[in-house]
Amino acid sequence: MKKYRIGILGATGIVGQRFVSLLGSHPHFEIVSLTASKKSAGRKYSEIVDWYMRNDIPENVRETIIVNNTDKEISRENLDIVFSALPSKLAYDIEIDLAKEGIAVFSNTNAHRMDIDVPILIPEINANHLQLVGKQKFGTGFIVTNSNCSTSGLVFGLRPLQKFNIREVYVTTYQSISGAGKKGVASMDILGNVIPFISGEEEKMELETKKILGTFDGEQIQDADFDINASCARVPVLEGHLESIVVNFNEDVSLEEINQSFKSFNGLDTNTFPTAPMNPIILTLEDDRPQPTRDLLTEKNLGMAITIGRVRRKGTSVNFFLLVHNTLRGAAGASILNAEYALQEGFLK
Amino acid sequence: MKKYRIGILGATGIVGQRFVSLLGSHPHFEIVSLTASKKSAGRKYSEIVDWYMRNDIPENVRETIIVNNTDKEISRENLDIVFSALPSKLAYDIEIDLAKEGIAVFSNTNAHRMDIDVPILIPEINANHLQLVGKQKFGTGFIVTNSNCSTSGLVFGLRPLQKFNIREVYVTTYQSISGAGKKGVASMDILGNVIPFISGEEEKMELETKKILGTFDGEQIQDADFDINASCARVPVLEGHLESIVVNFNEDVSLEEINQSFKSFNGLDTNTFPTAPMNPIILTLEDDRPQPTRDLLTEKNLGMAITIGRVRRKGTSVNFFLLVHNTLRGAAGASILNAEYALQEGFLK
Amino acid sequence: MKKYRIGILGATGIVGQRFVSLLGSHPHFEIVSLTASKKSAGRKYSEIVDWYMRNDIPENVRETIIVNNTDKEISRENLDIVFSALPSKLAYDIEIDLAKEGIAVFSNTNAHRMDIDVPILIPEINANHLQLVGKQKFGTGFIVTNSNCSTSGLVFGLRPLQKFNIREVYVTTYQSISGAGKKGVASMDILGNVIPFISGEEEKMELETKKILGTFDGEQIQDADFDINASCARVPVLEGHLESIVVNFNEDVSLEEINQSFKSFNGLDTNTFPTAPMNPIILTLEDDRPQPTRDLLTEKNLGMAITIGRVRRKGTSVNFFLLVHNTLRGAAGASILNAEYALQEGFLK
Amino acid sequence: MKKYRIGILGATGIVGQRFVSLLGSHPHFEIVSLTASKKSAGRKYSEIVDWYMRNDIPENVRETIIVNNTDKEISRENLDIVFSALPSKLAYDIEIDLAKEGIAVFSNTNAHRMDIDVPILIPEINANHLQLVGKQKFGTGFIVTNSNCSTSGLVFGLRPLQKFNIREVYVTTYQSISGAGKKGVASMDILGNVIPFISGEEEKMELETKKILGTFDGEQIQDADFDINASCARVPVLEGHLESIVVNFNEDVSLEEINQSFKSFNGLDTNTFPTAPMNPIILTLEDDRPQPTRDLLTEKNLGMAITIGRVRRKGTSVNFFLLVHNTLRGAAGASILNAEYALQEGFLK
Repeated sequence: MKKYRIGILGATGIVGQRFVSLLGSHPHFEIVSLTASKKSAGRKYSEIVDWYMRNDIPENVRETIIVNNTDKEISRENLDIVFSALPSKLAYDIEIDLAKEGIAVFSNTNAHRMDIDVPILIPEINANHLQLVGKQKFGTGFIVTNSNCSTSGLVFGLRPLQKFNIREVYVTTYQSISGAGKKGVASMDILGNVIPFISGEEEKMELETKKILGTFDGEQIQDADFDINASCARVPVLEGHLESIVVNFNEDVSLEEINQSFKSFNGLDTNTFPTAPMNPIILTLEDDRPQPTRDLLTEKNLGMAITIGRVRRKGTSVNFFLLVHNTLRGAAGASILNAEYALQEGFLK
Repeated sequence: MKKYRIGILGATGIVGQRFVSLLGSHPHFEIVSLTASKKSAGRKYSEIVDWYMRNDIPENVRETIIVNNTDKEISRENLDIVFSALPSKLAYDIEIDLAKEGIAVFSNTNAHRMDIDVPILIPEINANHLQLVGKQKFGTGFIVTNSNCSTSGLVFGLRPLQKFNIREVYVTTYQSISGAGKKGVASMDILGNVIPFISGEEEKMELETKKILGTFDGEQIQDADFDINASCARVPVLEGHLESIVVNFNEDVSLEEINQSFKSFNGLDTNTFPTAPMNPIILTLEDDRPQPTRDLLTEKNLGMAITIGRVRRKGTSVNFFLLVHNTLRGAAGASILNAEYALQEGFLK
Repeated sequence: MKKYRIGILGATGIVGQRFVSLLGSHPHFEIVSLTASKKSAGRKYSEIVDWYMRNDIPENVRETIIVNNTDKEISRENLDIVFSALPSKLAYDIEIDLAKEGIAVFSNTNAHRMDIDVPILIPEINANHLQLVGKQKFGTGFIVTNSNCSTSGLVFGLRPLQKFNIREVYVTTYQSISGAGKKGVASMDILGNVIPFISGEEEKMELETKKILGTFDGEQIQDADFDINASCARVPVLEGHLESIVVNFNEDVSLEEINQSFKSFNGLDTNTFPTAPMNPIILTLEDDRPQPTRDLLTEKNLGMAITIGRVRRKGTSVNFFLLVHNTLRGAAGASILNAEYALQEGFLK
Repeated sequence: MKKYRIGILGATGIVGQRFVSLLGSHPHFEIVSLTASKKSAGRKYSEIVDWYMRNDIPENVRETIIVNNTDKEISRENLDIVFSALPSKLAYDIEIDLAKEGIAVFSNTNAHRMDIDVPILIPEINANHLQLVGKQKFGTGFIVTNSNCSTSGLVFGLRPLQKFNIREVYVTTYQSISGAGKKGVASMDILGNVIPFISGEEEKMELETKKILGTFDGEQIQDADFDINASCARVPVLEGHLESIVVNFNEDVSLEEINQSFKSFNGLDTNTFPTAPMNPIILTLEDDRPQPTRDLLTEKNLGMAITIGRVRRKGTSVNFFLLVHNTLRGAAGASILNAEYALQEGFLK
């Protein structure tokens, strides 16, 4: 099978490294280009990256020469797909330019997420939103985004419950430091502490969730019609965002119905979509789970599944906790799964 | 002025040590008796306590000989007041026995909090609930409780808002490890982690809050009539419980009215009540506060004030974060303030 | 090939869980018996264990019924080998009894480590010490120990340097909390802190190291003749002991010779010894390594290799830092490798 | 008494804030000028500082307008003394320029520490080294430095033992993150981790210690003649450097003599020197102390005393652990004490 030629924008950050790590030996995709900031340009990837991943830097990119993020060297002639882990401001124009070049852009940044013709795609949840790229004016190129990391957990907690007529949602987060990048949170600020603020995060959760869970009528996306109230905080955890969620329904729902909805939520075919988890939602019945250090990476969960636990029903409400791996399901893994889905659906030329 | 003779039950735990530390040089109270478990009984306090407080063990209790928690040596002849930091099960009978002896029992345990004739007293909030002790059948003795540590923060966030007709409350906590006592949380379980479960905590917050914020009609307490939905988790923080709160109102309230209500909330006279904070609610306007390591003990807050921040209004809701010192305002300090209030009101003989 | 029947003593603790996890699918060994304390006896393993490992509880032991540690049900008729992760005091008699039964005992406890006829075996370092079991008086049974966790790192740092005539060694440790077991270190004691004391640890490092690095003359072990000065402390790290080491030589040694000795240190054949690392010593040349969170489990190091870094020469001294996985190379993994070695050498019947 | 006019260079960093905090109400010194980087210049101190101290920003500097670090506005006409918390490179020229202006410069940076005519002063240890400023060529101005933070602990551990003929010293550190400044250590790098490298730290400890403990013959300082071998690492602790120390002597010394030397080490008169601790060395006999979270700030130690514990004698060696408050005794407090000493000795005009 033909391998698609891949570029990774912002390849030295935490999310960039996740992209490199996951794409080191992908059946359909092959890394050919890596970009980073100007000061790294022209040097070998293995020389300039401060590598945080458990597995080694893939052999085939160790010697890859870094291109400046803003260089125009990246073109349709040498690339089919770009994964973007750029800072948001920088990403805005670059992603448009690449799409205009005819490149398929899968972006982890929030630059274009709320654009009216750009989907925030999560194949298990809103696969048909991918059709929205048909409305984009880039020719063969297009932009597909994945959601913000904390949003990526929340939507898996809500999607199985939408059939019960959700009225409103309250979510409070315990977010890990890796969500802010390598140097994002100073240790003086978070050691033994909680910081009840993450810039822009609450707005993202509220807006993105309604778009992802909305309906696509062939022309545009109609947002989900329930309200979301988000409060976000940073905690001294390396990886994994935990979320405390309350869902109020307009109708009476039993605990059994809710648990059943979580348990029966279907995943994709992992043969067709190598990055997809067998089981996107893992329901735990233990008293005190999920926990970041114990449930994030297990034999059953390689980082692309959401773990849900402590499901409690109170009147017409349900409370639960949810755990998502913020740099896999919440970032690089989500973006790659989107590309796999676009490939299967015939969107990649 | 006469000094009342004090006993501290469970004097070697974290809360017990806080009692000892705070009462080392109190104008009205003088420690004369300390109890602990059987294996410590008969030994000097300074020899058996694993002292966690910043200030030294008060000189006058270093040589005090520990009495077994369950001994009957503690009697009205040698004691006026008992502060109880016992485990709940152990506390149930002991506190009744001491009240029957004629002793004023100020308890930090939850054994009798929900008893129909026992107040959960917080003088700045529900001072008149103290009258409820008149319904108790212990003669001159009585039992007054303070609230659970996380409840003690929440009620300060709600009391100033009750005038706006609260419909329902959502609270999610980030609770420190000291709330579980010296050996309560193993480091293997919490380092770099969050545990989304604290046994009994959510129920306590929901029930106690409604009782504390209820009205006393001279006969009994009528619970506050709004619903409370609590989700509790442990975080790797030494001291201080942070709480994310959403209050829904039945009426429209402006952000200015809410902030004004917090700011104008009155404290007690600190001359009369030495343990009371000048200002029980500190409102912070900074982006990313309150934080446990930075706002718990400051020049303005010696651990008895609540810090509220990030007040955000959304429709008829208000969101905010709140920080309470769990072993001072949430435990020993609260209990001592209750005794000071009972003294001033003439309840101590 | 015949599979040897295995019992694991103390199977519910952290080291016990490591044994279970590693032996779930071993080519030569098969778990048939698990022991734990009295209160767990008679119940299924999966019901009573608080599982901390990343991989799942192996299917074949989920239903295994726990035997009381002190029961005599474990006999030569149903077991060939026992791995012991018991507390030291409890282990002393039990291990002797099992050896007398004719069972091969591989013990992670320190009960018999310093016995004159019991080797502290590390196959890459002192393989011939295994012959010492011939001096034991247990018939076909015998006891082989592995070293204390921090010792297991130190000896790999010293063995390659012994040819240079070591005069004395200084070692200071940064030891992780998992070394003290599941409930060994309370979070109140270690969060944001360092505890400069681990009971018995310094003595173990000093004595065990000299025995392991000593020579076996066919009759007894002659301790290595250099002095070791150890200082041990606990740090808030989940897994991995870091050690700062200074070695003083009686002769002049170049930095190149030292680095070469580390690099050329040979491992065992990993086909014959499935638990052995390809490369027991990984030398890193990076400025600021090894680090517990980054170098303990990598593509090149599955927990059985030692990482050495920051090698600095000063006069006739060399300074370096060293990292060892305390529950793999320092405990369960070491013990299993010893059994694999004994099997290959014909000691298992 | 006349108050000396003070400038603080680099007033917004952690050490700068310590200076401001300590000098807010000093009997002899009064802050009149604060400098910071260019982007803060021209703005009020309280508006630009991200305040980490427990006590409030002193009222008298809240409105102080920040001067650019490199501005020439600071002159002898408006200032008597400057405390420098600048980055080292920036400090080099600025400190010389200010001394030439006639200003007394007390510097916490290492820019001039090893200059032949600049003392590294610690009044309890090497008071007579202050005379060395007479060799400087700045007219009435001069430069006095205090030591690096980890050195400031080590010298208190060695000074009382110098009478016993020290042969060599081994020191391994556990250093807190505040030593690297507000943004110095990223949380991704240190949470649950140890970093065995601090740039330049080992060299500083080795060189500074020998200078501080050396003898001044009226002309120059003769370094102490024993060797120091330092290994430095960063641990996830907010404040306080712990050090593991081994001292080898050329003669036989008893444990009693060593303990006695620590206990009898004299402090300065705290009436004359308000920043000096009553007792510069606190010897603890407890098993597992000193510990950063428990011994750094206590009733007996306001941050200027060194705590020594676990003193163990082995042959002609002694091992012990030592704890120093890195931003008080190791930085701002040390510098202020030096100014108090210089004042008393008549060096301030």
